[in-house]
Amino acid sequence: MKHAPLVDQLIHAFTCLPGVGPRSAQRMAYALLDRGREQGRRLGDALHAAMDGVQHCQRCRNYAEAELCPICESPKRDSSLICIVATPADVLAFEQSGEYLGQYFVLMGELSPLDGIGPRELGLDVLEQRLQGGEIRELILATGTTVEGEATAHYVLDIAQDAGVQVTRIAQGVPMGGDLEFVDGATLAQALKARRPFGS
Amino acid sequence: MKHAPLVDQLIHAFTCLPGVGPRSAQRMAYALLDRGREQGRRLGDALHAAMDGVQHCQRCRNYAEAELCPICESPKRDSSLICIVATPADVLAFEQSGEYLGQYFVLMGELSPLDGIGPRELGLDVLEQRLQGGEIRELILATGTTVEGEATAHYVLDIAQDAGVQVTRIAQGVPMGGDLEFVDGATLAQALKARRPFGS
Repeated sequence: MKHAPLVDQLIHAFTCLPGVGPRSAQRMAYALLDRGREQGRRLGDALHAAMDGVQHCQRCRNYAEAELCPICESPKRDSSLICIVATPADVLAFEQSGEYLGQYFVLMGELSPLDGIGPRELGLDVLEQRLQGGEIRELILATGTTVEGEATAHYVLDIAQDAGVQVTRIAQGVPMGGDLEFVDGATLAQALKARRPFGS
Repeated sequence: MKHAPLVDQLIHAFTCLPGVGPRSAQRMAYALLDRGREQGRRLGDALHAAMDGVQHCQRCRNYAEAELCPICESPKRDSSLICIVATPADVLAFEQSGEYLGQYFVLMGELSPLDGIGPRELGLDVLEQRLQGGEIRELILATGTTVEGEATAHYVLDIAQDAGVQVTRIAQGVPMGGDLEFVDGATLAQALKARRPFGS
């Protein structure tokens, strides 16, 4: 004897989410059934709407509901300046800083040959064509500092140099407003190596 | 500038789940959008089906897809023996033991006056009527050993005694097959207090 079949189906469906095992899935199903049916229906609607309505921007690969995302469509953004990031969350972080007025290219991952993620999966063939096209002036690398992030950064550097496009990388160093004692050794070593003249 | 609206709506909808904050919600949305659209649609379907199709058994309050759940409907189950549990998961645990052939009464919670959960919210008025009806021979208490569980157990004890129905409680003691050194002190003290003659 188990739960009512619809309850079991719901619990099973929840386990497709990252970080959700059978126990949390059961807790989620109970919570919605016991005191959140309306929220449950809303989540169901949101899932269908997003699964069917969200595509990737043809230009920058970020999530979009039309062929182009709002950033790629905006005439206010400098389309000759492209920042390379791994995920849509990174775009959000840059946008929240309010400092960046160029456009993005969202890899939706990082190079990881063992997982079958090569340049094509990240759209790097498309980026290469755009670089060859000559309308890009500067490429800013903002991929992560993991092994995969570094490998991806070097691959992009190669194709940009082939196309004669300038490549920069966002500065690595100590975070603003933080106490030095909480900064890890690798970051501190990098901050020391990349020190710059002060007072100039 | 934020995510595409449908993505933001999905992330927001995920945060209604217990234990899911904005970060995990974003991770869930990305996972489904990037490599699980079909799973996402299935989860949406399962949500709608469960929110609309799951009700409570009129007899035992467990989840059911009809007026009565399969256990209350089964002629093989002894309807004069009722086990009181807090949640549908507890019913599952008893059923998996395969030892119990009576029926259940599922409180769907425990008494917690500060949270507005009184006897009515747990269906204890309905249980009281059934106890007065005279068809119940024995009530087995299997609520938790927390303060709320104990309060609930004593409330049920009161209404059962008023109706002249025998009340028992599942044994508390050391778990089967476990090493004594891993058993907590309170459990061990209870096991000692409730010791029984051996070899009889």
